[in-house]
Amino acid sequence: MDPLSREHAQASDAADPLAGFRERFVLGEDERIYLDGNSLGRLPVATRDRLAVLVREWGERLVEGWADWIDSPARVGDLIAEEVLGAAPGEVVVADSTTVNLYKLCAALLDDRTGALVTDAGNFPTDRYVLEGLAAATGRELRLVGAPEDAAAERDVALVVLSHVDYRSGAIADMAALTAEIEADVVWDVSHSAGVVPIELRAAGVQFAVGCTYKYLNAGPGAPAFLYVARERQAALRSPIWGWFGQREQFAMERSYDPEDGIRRFLAGTPPILGLAAVEEGVRLTAEAGVEAIRAKSVAQTELIVTLADAWPAPLGFEVASPRDPAARGSHVALRHPEAWPICRALIERAGVVPDFRGPDIIRLGVAPLYTRFTDVWDALDRLRGVVERGEQRLVDATPGRVT
Amino acid sequence: MDPLSREHAQASDAADPLAGFRERFVLGEDERIYLDGNSLGRLPVATRDRLAVLVREWGERLVEGWADWIDSPARVGDLIAEEVLGAAPGEVVVADSTTVNLYKLCAALLDDRTGALVTDAGNFPTDRYVLEGLAAATGRELRLVGAPEDAAAERDVALVVLSHVDYRSGAIADMAALTAEIEADVVWDVSHSAGVVPIELRAAGVQFAVGCTYKYLNAGPGAPAFLYVARERQAALRSPIWGWFGQREQFAMERSYDPEDGIRRFLAGTPPILGLAAVEEGVRLTAEAGVEAIRAKSVAQTELIVTLADAWPAPLGFEVASPRDPAARGSHVALRHPEAWPICRALIERAGVVPDFRGPDIIRLGVAPLYTRFTDVWDALDRLRGVVERGEQRLVDATPGRVT
Repeated sequence: MDPLSREHAQASDAADPLAGFRERFVLGEDERIYLDGNSLGRLPVATRDRLAVLVREWGERLVEGWADWIDSPARVGDLIAEEVLGAAPGEVVVADSTTVNLYKLCAALLDDRTGALVTDAGNFPTDRYVLEGLAAATGRELRLVGAPEDAAAERDVALVVLSHVDYRSGAIADMAALTAEIEADVVWDVSHSAGVVPIELRAAGVQFAVGCTYKYLNAGPGAPAFLYVARERQAALRSPIWGWFGQREQFAMERSYDPEDGIRRFLAGTPPILGLAAVEEGVRLTAEAGVEAIRAKSVAQTELIVTLADAWPAPLGFEVASPRDPAARGSHVALRHPEAWPICRALIERAGVVPDFRGPDIIRLGVAPLYTRFTDVWDALDRLRGVVERGEQRLVDATPGRVT
Repeated sequence: MDPLSREHAQASDAADPLAGFRERFVLGEDERIYLDGNSLGRLPVATRDRLAVLVREWGERLVEGWADWIDSPARVGDLIAEEVLGAAPGEVVVADSTTVNLYKLCAALLDDRTGALVTDAGNFPTDRYVLEGLAAATGRELRLVGAPEDAAAERDVALVVLSHVDYRSGAIADMAALTAEIEADVVWDVSHSAGVVPIELRAAGVQFAVGCTYKYLNAGPGAPAFLYVARERQAALRSPIWGWFGQREQFAMERSYDPEDGIRRFLAGTPPILGLAAVEEGVRLTAEAGVEAIRAKSVAQTELIVTLADAWPAPLGFEVASPRDPAARGSHVALRHPEAWPICRALIERAGVVPDFRGPDIIRLGVAPLYTRFTDVWDALDRLRGVVERGEQRLVDATPGRVT
């Protein structure tokens, strides 16, 4: 069978062991091909139902609900630790945003050392901004190296922050090798890999990480993020934000701050209980499928994107801006095109395909193996080719705007 | 009619202009008398429905939902500003927890000044902890004065943090007078007054405030908090947490951090969209009733608590630990009793009344005028008397524990 044919994609779907997971998501009448799960994942049916239950629980149990809710940052953290991160119970909490968690972790680490902050210039903006802020606050240099690999050559470094998967190119950084090579502590942002690329923090020697739950973990818009600190590093670190959820014996209120021994010391204020329930359901669904199986399908699907993009006649002008080695690529493929933004708009408005755009010239096509079909990938690429062949990108309103 | 009689309470309910708001909450089969809305407010019907709509919206609109969601921290902030805080549009954002917001605001204010931090020893624990942390990080003294009023006498002060309503006693601090008298900037925590005690930040000369939405604003467990900075003070302040939601032109990602001009510069990471919707609904309901009307009922209800508590024979051993002047009292009454904790447990387990406990010896009875009836107050006090007269506090498991 022609590997470029739709029939081949259909055969892949028919043989897909994860095919059944698609119906675990709320799809409704939605005929769109959604290739932006790397930005905001779809709504799992279990999450919709759980949120309704949780809202009812708030209404019925009222304040007594806290007897169960109060442990959810650590309980859901344990679940993520085991199922997604290759970490141990007691090493992860879920609360606050990725930004706030990165801030807490970096500020804690900077407390006892001098030296520069290092990240790569292409790291996700909020990661860079957090470091810029900490550099300004502590009078340090922030060095932006060209790529994660370049961090290893830097000297007089206090702390390095790197992303496991690059949000633009989809390139996977070698977490274990870089953690070993870099002299300083490294904080890994696993937002773009959590749930879709196997992560073994402990085996990789990683001691610090943060990440997002609303991408491949499907926990919904603004769901809380996670924070990981290897057990052996917890006791010496203090979050800069001393809050009552990090306090030992939280309800013995008349004492000075005395943080919990373990990972809970990184909690601050009252955690978002609805969001935590959504994270729990999203992680359970991922765990049921298994990250290894998800990864195998993701690799096959991004390979299909690359293969089809390569097969197009050159005049269409696309360039694959992601690594060609699937082992070095996360779950999205970046295509570079000078008209990337109007092409994105035309895909959304005229072709029923939802990619996303990252300026100035990148179209990201993300596959979320729990619900993306091989035929979705094939149809999306086919429609993309059609849009560009017909010049439909010149028929849409392409006023510069925002695609999240 | 005897003002201590249940008939009098019934007559008050019959004449209550807010009585109809009770059915705007999900009550179900719940026969309990809930006097802990000062800790976690009840679930409004509109919020239950809105959350279901929002979850569906996530499922259907997917990432395109962000076109509307992205403005919700500022939009809901404007609503709170106008309806609850006596502030102007553009002065409030909703995101993160009260703890994180207090940290951001205090750290921003400390950036350019020397001097001590001041709060009162009885301020809410997380407020004290945040200040302890900032004192430690910046090498400052943290002075714990005896009462909010004592802050005015302190010298060489960088920043004062006070609560508008004391979480234990319910005492209202004179926000306008103290803000004027205290030389340093004052950050007000209005968590225990927002939505139930009229707040006029601008008229009171207040320039900085934070507060919680899950108490009298009924936004649910862990709903996001708000942060207020008077417009004229915004430009000079920078949040210590530089995040992408505070960035001007957030999606022009290839630039250095350059914060928004206005209040949005205090945003950090991706805000919790479900929680924001719940805040919006809760504030709308409060606005529909009007904080002035809510306050009038709250005063009448806390007066009834004090009157009934005073009328009991002295041997029951309760002491009113809240101000007796209703103008100086928020929406809960603290009763002091040496057996406060077992009495609380007996009320919950044997009498169908939910108060809360604050160690070592305080029972808090909170009224939430949108759903608390005068007969609820009367029945609760009657049952409290019965529990203590019969010594039921000695019949329950009173192992020291937690009541949120």
